[in-house]
Formats: sequence, structure tokens, C-alpha cells
Amino acid sequence: MAKLVHSMIRVIDEARSVEFYRTAFGLRIVDRVDFADFTLVYMAGDAVGFELELTINKGRTEPYSLGDGYGHLAVVVDDVDAEHARLTDVGLAPRKLVDFRNGDVLVGRFFFVADPDGYQIEVIQRGGRFG
Amino acid sequence: MAKLVHSMIRVIDEARSVEFYRTAFGLRIVDRVDFADFTLVYMAGDAVGFELELTINKGRTEPYSLGDGYGHLAVVVDDVDAEHARLTDVGLAPRKLVDFRNGDVLVGRFFFVADPDGYQIEVIQRGGRFG
Repeated sequence: MAKLVHSMIRVIDEARSVEFYRTAFGLRIVDRVDFADFTLVYMAGDAVGFELELTINKGRTEPYSLGDGYGHLAVVVDDVDAEHARLTDVGLAPRKLVDFRNGDVLVGRFFFVADPDGYQIEVIQRGGRFG
Repeated sequence: MAKLVHSMIRVIDEARSVEFYRTAFGLRIVDRVDFADFTLVYMAGDAVGFELELTINKGRTEPYSLGDGYGHLAVVVDDVDAEHARLTDVGLAPRKLVDFRNGDVLVGRFFFVADPDGYQIEVIQRGGRFG
């Protein structure tokens, strides 16, 4: 059986991205592998065996094209209002908090925040199926 | 503490994508939420609390632009050679198996396979830090 283990995104500035994912979501570096032309940085939280892999192609300065296919990585948090306030305070400019409804059913409460390269992260209130 | 819970990609054909992720990686539908303009399908395996979210925007027929920023989702398997053979047999056209080395160090053995919309999935031999 296959097991999902990581998602990889290409980023321009290793330090900037590592700092973002640490500050915003508490991810830490669990591995870093340096090659001649690129570096791989694996970041993870405490709660789940799934990692974010950052690829830094050395010498790349042009922003990556993000397209309209890939959507986002999502995290759940215990208190989405408090996290929204905290990320606002540290200057990460989260988008507004929204209640996501399907007709009368509340599906979830969340906001989006962009990482330094423009990738979106969805921050969802823990509860229901977002456990 | 934030917990990584899912990665979202936009796909054109719900049935085609669900069939691919089931056949290739044994993922099953754990939730499906239908809205007026789009459908969300959550798929997961048995091994980890991380899900793949498919978004199907109704009426969309134009292929999504994948850009060059987002890389891939990765899975580990117990026998990457057997999985490569199996996916070849079922017609999913995996790319060739490669040993990924950093100088003399074998980092991993893997192959890539594309999903129906062209998103890449890395299939890695379980072992070492890819557990």
C-alpha cells in the first residue's frame, strides 16, 4: 500500500521559506540534503508523518510560475481566530477569516495565507472531519 | 500547533482522477462534498492522516496550467520495482526507475508517474528516512 509522505514545492529563498513555515505553522527542518545544483529541505510538524519538501534551485532568481492547477496545502489548528490574529500581528497578512457553508451546513472555518513564493496555505479550525 | 492535513489540486474529470489514485496508490474516497459550482473529493490511504483533496470545477474543460513551481506529491511503497511493473502493466506509463545519488550516497530509489491532469507523483522505495 502506498503511503503519502510529502509534497514538494520549488522556492526561491531557502532561509525566507524556512522562516515562514516555522513562524506560521511551527514546522521544523527534519532533513536537508545539499546537491551541486540544488538543495532539498524537508520540514515537518509534530503531529503527522507528512512533510513539506522545499526545493531550492541554486542561482534561480526568477519567480516560479504557479499556474492555476495546484491549489494549496492545508493545516488544522486548535483556534483559528487566535492563529489569524497571531499571523496578522507578525506581519504575514493572512486573508480574512471565512465560514465555509454549503447551503445551511457549516463545512469549516478557515483563512488563507500566502507563503513567500505565493503558494497558498489554508488554515482550518480543528473539528468535525478536519481533526 | 498546526497539523498538515491535505493537499489540494484542481482536476478536470472526477471519475478519471478518482480511478487513477485508487488504481495507482490504493487511495479511497473518505469524503465528497458537492456544491453548486464545484465538487470536493477527499481521498486517503490507510497509513497516514493526510489526504489528497480534488477540486472539480463544474463546466471546466480547459486543462489547468501547472506552472513550474509546484513539484509533486510523494508516496512510499514497500517494493518500488514491483509497483513500477504493476503500474506499467495497467497502462499508467510510469517513467523509468532511478537511483538518486548525492555523490556516492544513495538517497533513494524512485520513479515518477503522472496523474490524468499531468500532476507528478513520486513513488519512493520505503527505507531510511522514507519510512
